[in-house]
Amino acid sequence: MSGYGIHFPRSCKVYAEGSRPDIRVPFREIALHGDNPPLRLYDTSGPYADPGFEPDPRKGLPAMRGGWIAERGDVEEHASGVAILTNPEKAFHGLERAPLRAKSGHAPTQIAYARRGVVTPEMEFVALREQVDPAFVRDEVAAGRAVIPLNINHPEAEPMVIGRKFRTKINANIGNSALGSSIEEEVEKMRWAILWGSDTVMDLSTGADIHDTREWIVRNAPVPIGTVPLYQALKKIDDDARGLCWELYRDTLVEQAEQGIDYFTIHAGVLRKDLAAARQRKLGIVSRGGSIMAKWMIDNHAENFLYTRFREICEIMRAYDITFSLGDGLRPGCIADANDAAQLGELKTLGELAKVAWEMDCQVMIEGPGHVPLDLIRENMELQLRDCFEAPFYTLGPLVTDCAAGYDHVNSAIGGAVIGWYGTSMLCYVTPKEHLGLPNREDVKEGVIVHKIAAHAADLAKRVPGAMDRDEAMRKARGEFRWEDQYNLSFDPLRAREFRRASLPPAERDQVDQHYCSMCGERYCSMRISEELRNT
Amino acid sequence: MSGYGIHFPRSCKVYAEGSRPDIRVPFREIALHGDNPPLRLYDTSGPYADPGFEPDPRKGLPAMRGGWIAERGDVEEHASGVAILTNPEKAFHGLERAPLRAKSGHAPTQIAYARRGVVTPEMEFVALREQVDPAFVRDEVAAGRAVIPLNINHPEAEPMVIGRKFRTKINANIGNSALGSSIEEEVEKMRWAILWGSDTVMDLSTGADIHDTREWIVRNAPVPIGTVPLYQALKKIDDDARGLCWELYRDTLVEQAEQGIDYFTIHAGVLRKDLAAARQRKLGIVSRGGSIMAKWMIDNHAENFLYTRFREICEIMRAYDITFSLGDGLRPGCIADANDAAQLGELKTLGELAKVAWEMDCQVMIEGPGHVPLDLIRENMELQLRDCFEAPFYTLGPLVTDCAAGYDHVNSAIGGAVIGWYGTSMLCYVTPKEHLGLPNREDVKEGVIVHKIAAHAADLAKRVPGAMDRDEAMRKARGEFRWEDQYNLSFDPLRAREFRRASLPPAERDQVDQHYCSMCGERYCSMRISEELRNT
Repeated sequence: MSGYGIHFPRSCKVYAEGSRPDIRVPFREIALHGDNPPLRLYDTSGPYADPGFEPDPRKGLPAMRGGWIAERGDVEEHASGVAILTNPEKAFHGLERAPLRAKSGHAPTQIAYARRGVVTPEMEFVALREQVDPAFVRDEVAAGRAVIPLNINHPEAEPMVIGRKFRTKINANIGNSALGSSIEEEVEKMRWAILWGSDTVMDLSTGADIHDTREWIVRNAPVPIGTVPLYQALKKIDDDARGLCWELYRDTLVEQAEQGIDYFTIHAGVLRKDLAAARQRKLGIVSRGGSIMAKWMIDNHAENFLYTRFREICEIMRAYDITFSLGDGLRPGCIADANDAAQLGELKTLGELAKVAWEMDCQVMIEGPGHVPLDLIRENMELQLRDCFEAPFYTLGPLVTDCAAGYDHVNSAIGGAVIGWYGTSMLCYVTPKEHLGLPNREDVKEGVIVHKIAAHAADLAKRVPGAMDRDEAMRKARGEFRWEDQYNLSFDPLRAREFRRASLPPAERDQVDQHYCSMCGERYCSMRISEELRNT
Repeated sequence: MSGYGIHFPRSCKVYAEGSRPDIRVPFREIALHGDNPPLRLYDTSGPYADPGFEPDPRKGLPAMRGGWIAERGDVEEHASGVAILTNPEKAFHGLERAPLRAKSGHAPTQIAYARRGVVTPEMEFVALREQVDPAFVRDEVAAGRAVIPLNINHPEAEPMVIGRKFRTKINANIGNSALGSSIEEEVEKMRWAILWGSDTVMDLSTGADIHDTREWIVRNAPVPIGTVPLYQALKKIDDDARGLCWELYRDTLVEQAEQGIDYFTIHAGVLRKDLAAARQRKLGIVSRGGSIMAKWMIDNHAENFLYTRFREICEIMRAYDITFSLGDGLRPGCIADANDAAQLGELKTLGELAKVAWEMDCQVMIEGPGHVPLDLIRENMELQLRDCFEAPFYTLGPLVTDCAAGYDHVNSAIGGAVIGWYGTSMLCYVTPKEHLGLPNREDVKEGVIVHKIAAHAADLAKRVPGAMDRDEAMRKARGEFRWEDQYNLSFDPLRAREFRRASLPPAERDQVDQHYCSMCGERYCSMRISEELRNT
């Protein structure tokens, strides 16, 4: 059995080596039948799929990037001493290194290196992954059009790039809530999400043992991990937003920075001036972070401290190379509120903040809507490019109707494919449970796969290098009735196989060489007739 | 329990009356909580949902449109005497009327009436259904921009309109194949598909008892039924395409016309001149009808008889008011073949044929692709409008990648939403089994619902009258934490309810008044905070 377990038959993990032996870029290679060469696919599953790899969640993954970080000489061990609420019974004990931070006067960020013309090993790694030139990656990062979200304290992560000139990425949210789920479950959900192709994972825990849950996830995560630090800050004061303050929030940023979180959602763009417009809305503020900050501003008669303290936040982000994901606290929560004054006002603020972040050598992406009808998606994308100066857009959906409860993953895949094609760099997945509850394992898989399909559709439309290879292989397998290859080239081989088997009479179920399927039956098979035509 | 069974709680069937008491237009009305008025939705489920209606499949549905057809005085009873292969044990015995046909010199088609300025009861019916003016319906039908597919021998059907200025429609394919499924199953699949919202149903049977299966379906169908007559013609000669001839095909058309089929897919646009281009393709001809006609042309060294006999076909279509669905026999079967010379060449031929059909007072729509990447969809739609003179477009998908086996319903919903927004009038559903096998009951439901979502997204984007009402009601229910209303306003209320229940602790599962959900838990609920903000 391959390292992919039962899920990807005839797939194995392979590595492409870069200019130095420690640049080893993972791919999933699918063996095809006949004379067909194997197909290499972008792979997010990490070392778990390596033949012979025996994961030990208590130790975490190897620090594959540790040498690259150390050799640049711009970071040092430094424990901030920020107070941490940990649960000894649940704590992760496998980490034997101290947290790193930038040396004074240094900016260990990918954007700082890119601007100085340096191609880091991380940039070369993602260039190989994306089938592009390393200098192109460097230039995109330098221009702020792409980010490589990699905290110096998360050396376990395999570099990946988020930018509209590269493959469209997807993110899966996991995390416990007050209503349940354990640390083991969350770590397993992360592994499950990346097996199916999630490029990053956000830990949105709001329940018990937030620090420890996150630590287990990060130590075992080969993909960048994002969080919304506000949730933990609030948890520390028993969910009472009135107690929120800069110091509490700052310490939470540092706590998570030292753990290795790769990007932070920060709702710094919700300003007092926008609240009047938000009150005019049909559905108010539907972003958790946005609504919390709005409440805080009203309760305290003060401007959003995430905005007023933004340069201080940048200093923290820069010291660990944490990427900003500037949260759209005023994203529309219903079709009727799409592209309204509140949303578009905030977008301009996010653009101003992006400029500040760049000025301070930080990487930044911008979060986007939300609920948007199809005809307003393009305007969203165009305004984002204009007002945020081409910083990568990271969108939730968008959902193209309000009415799809139970099917919001499909709703979001529709909007996501379209906005991905227009230029969004990463799609946040939505599961069938959206608007209803927390996803279980099956929901996570469904959410990941339909957004992989949406992202792939966007890549085909954008003619991203290599995107067409998979469709070419599938097309050829279809034309040659290679059923097993068709299964294995799909996003969920076992599902495809099971679906076909269920349609066949029992005696034929395990034959994989029929020159027809049960949709049309043998005599009406257009593919078979086409084959005959070619041969006449 | 309402007539909708368990599937749509708090929904009931209501009728809006037109200018005469026998114009009774069905809607599904959802009762909402609080002071909220009930919401009326377009409804396709037919009299099955009427309170007290007791269906008897052996008798079929009432001939609700019988009087309208008779009162125009342009049709007469006429049995053609075409030989029919029926199975006495499986035959439908409930029909007590003879088949109708146009009186000599008459054109009992909706387009003929529309062109003479007449608003038929059928047009008024669909105008009420679509919330538009009856004269607008008449003008769209007269111009060929919309069709009302209603065979004079299918008086059981409730009128509906297909055109890009109306609600985007969806079609579900059912039908047995050589590999199984019974007549009862097919009738039940039809009822199941229209319960979830399918606007028309195509019977694509290729297995046993084709005539009888179709008869049971039509007699029990309150929606238009489409077929591909070629499949039955071929069946009559034991699937040997060499035996195909005009007389056999013509008799099959007449046989199905007398049964009441409302629209025929006819692959009259695949011409000998296109075969060279088709041979150049990566994946040849993937349309069953197209490949059969191609084979016939090659075997017989003759032009497609569906093309050469097109005027004779028009005469049959006109005599029963059967709508053409001009099949795209050369639709691309993979992304690489999209918008190629074969496809676009055929599209021009279909446009020429549409003109002939219009000249002969027939209604016509054009079938469309297929596999098309997102960036080529608009060109497809624009060329179709130009080359086919705005005849309604009826597309399969399009599928925006070749690789989504097992998830092709989502793949198709993505392309369908986009092409629907651009102007496609009806989407042919695709189920999760596409490319793999025949759909079962659950697949039919999934296929219908995701395409309803796609069609609704298109309608919101096109600002179709009334489309926004449902989203408005859902938005309000969400803001007011009316959970039961949120379930009932969704496309599958039981699924939405079950998904939320599964996320809640057992004690809370049947509470419907919590002001939060398990996604965020109570303290982090943005909707609750927004509510507080509104009240401050």
